[in-house]
Amino acid sequence: MTKEQYNILNNYMLAHSDNNAHDSYHIYRVLNQALLLAKNYKNINYDVLITSCLLHDIARNKQFNDKTLCHAKEGGIMAYDYLKQQGYEEEFCIHVKDCITTHRFRSNNEPKTIEAKILFDSDKLDVMGTLGISRTLMYGGKLNRPLYLLDSNDKIDYNSNLEAKETFLGEYNYKLKNIYKKFYTKEAKRLSKKLNKIQVEFYNNLLKQIDVSNLKNELNNHLN
Amino acid sequence: MTKEQYNILNNYMLAHSDNNAHDSYHIYRVLNQALLLAKNYKNINYDVLITSCLLHDIARNKQFNDKTLCHAKEGGIMAYDYLKQQGYEEEFCIHVKDCITTHRFRSNNEPKTIEAKILFDSDKLDVMGTLGISRTLMYGGKLNRPLYLLDSNDKIDYNSNLEAKETFLGEYNYKLKNIYKKFYTKEAKRLSKKLNKIQVEFYNNLLKQIDVSNLKNELNNHLN
Repeated sequence: MTKEQYNILNNYMLAHSDNNAHDSYHIYRVLNQALLLAKNYKNINYDVLITSCLLHDIARNKQFNDKTLCHAKEGGIMAYDYLKQQGYEEEFCIHVKDCITTHRFRSNNEPKTIEAKILFDSDKLDVMGTLGISRTLMYGGKLNRPLYLLDSNDKIDYNSNLEAKETFLGEYNYKLKNIYKKFYTKEAKRLSKKLNKIQVEFYNNLLKQIDVSNLKNELNNHLN
Repeated sequence: MTKEQYNILNNYMLAHSDNNAHDSYHIYRVLNQALLLAKNYKNINYDVLITSCLLHDIARNKQFNDKTLCHAKEGGIMAYDYLKQQGYEEEFCIHVKDCITTHRFRSNNEPKTIEAKILFDSDKLDVMGTLGISRTLMYGGKLNRPLYLLDSNDKIDYNSNLEAKETFLGEYNYKLKNIYKKFYTKEAKRLSKKLNKIQVEFYNNLLKQIDVSNLKNELNNHLN
């Protein structure tokens, strides 16, 4: 790939990026991580890998505006159409489309090629550790979701209803807690264990800090 | 204070709380923390302390809708008016007003009474450690602020302009980083040091994770 081609793809990405959890910095971190992971493999198609990393979230805004859409599926189609229009070969366009279509955690559509696996792992490493915590919290704030909910006994409500599931602690339990098990490449597995330790510590410290289970008793000492 | 009086104040607070960084859970955590800090002192006016904790953020929505207003000052006035209308004594209303007016970190108006100091410290402990990080991130997400910005050399831009100052990393450097120095009570000082250690670790881990300073070099190996 030439620098000029890269710049065209980069500008297309910038025109479709959001300004929050999936902004262009996320794209560059994923690209940076992917190039590091790729060093452990021979015969990597770097044009496919770089293009897939750049374009993997171009349908995020589409999904944000219509929650029934899957940004991975839509992004694959958009990337394919755009690359064809730019004159790239059919095989290249299909390969990039497959990488983007299979990069999503919630999807059952697993990545098959090494480039698809590296994109998947790089994208998931970006939602682990301090960065995963930060991005999940910012995204929750954007959607006006609470940090957590308590039930009537002042215990954390993780999943009694959709609102509880969509709190940060609900999301942590549904997605972030188990994500370290989902990696494909050896190096990403190693990194994910380190990042998982960081997020477990954060979670445990947060649980301590939000604990008000004794407040009612304390109050009773001062109310008639 | 009777339970009935507490419930009336609690309902007034609930009617004025937001659903994000300063939701009612924040209020109860501050109240919980304040009752724990108060145990280290004799002659605490618990009615003043409990009322001030409950009502300290009632003007948050006002400030959110009009950034020129200070929620501490406005909240003090609102609380005074409401408590007078509820038939509380002038001295009590003034004391609560003073506690609320002086609870703000950005304000130069320092807390004077022990109840005001305890409210200040309890409120600030809630913006330290994992909770401070979480709440700052969610509030940033709500306002659509980015996690951080990079300058043209891919170094973090903390304060070149207002947008950079208002990122999470900008806010960390402006407010969160130094907050542990601001406490009044001995026990809060001790707790704040522990919480500061947690947030410094988070900050350092985040810096490592977002570092893409070598991306341009890596890319150059694969672009013609």
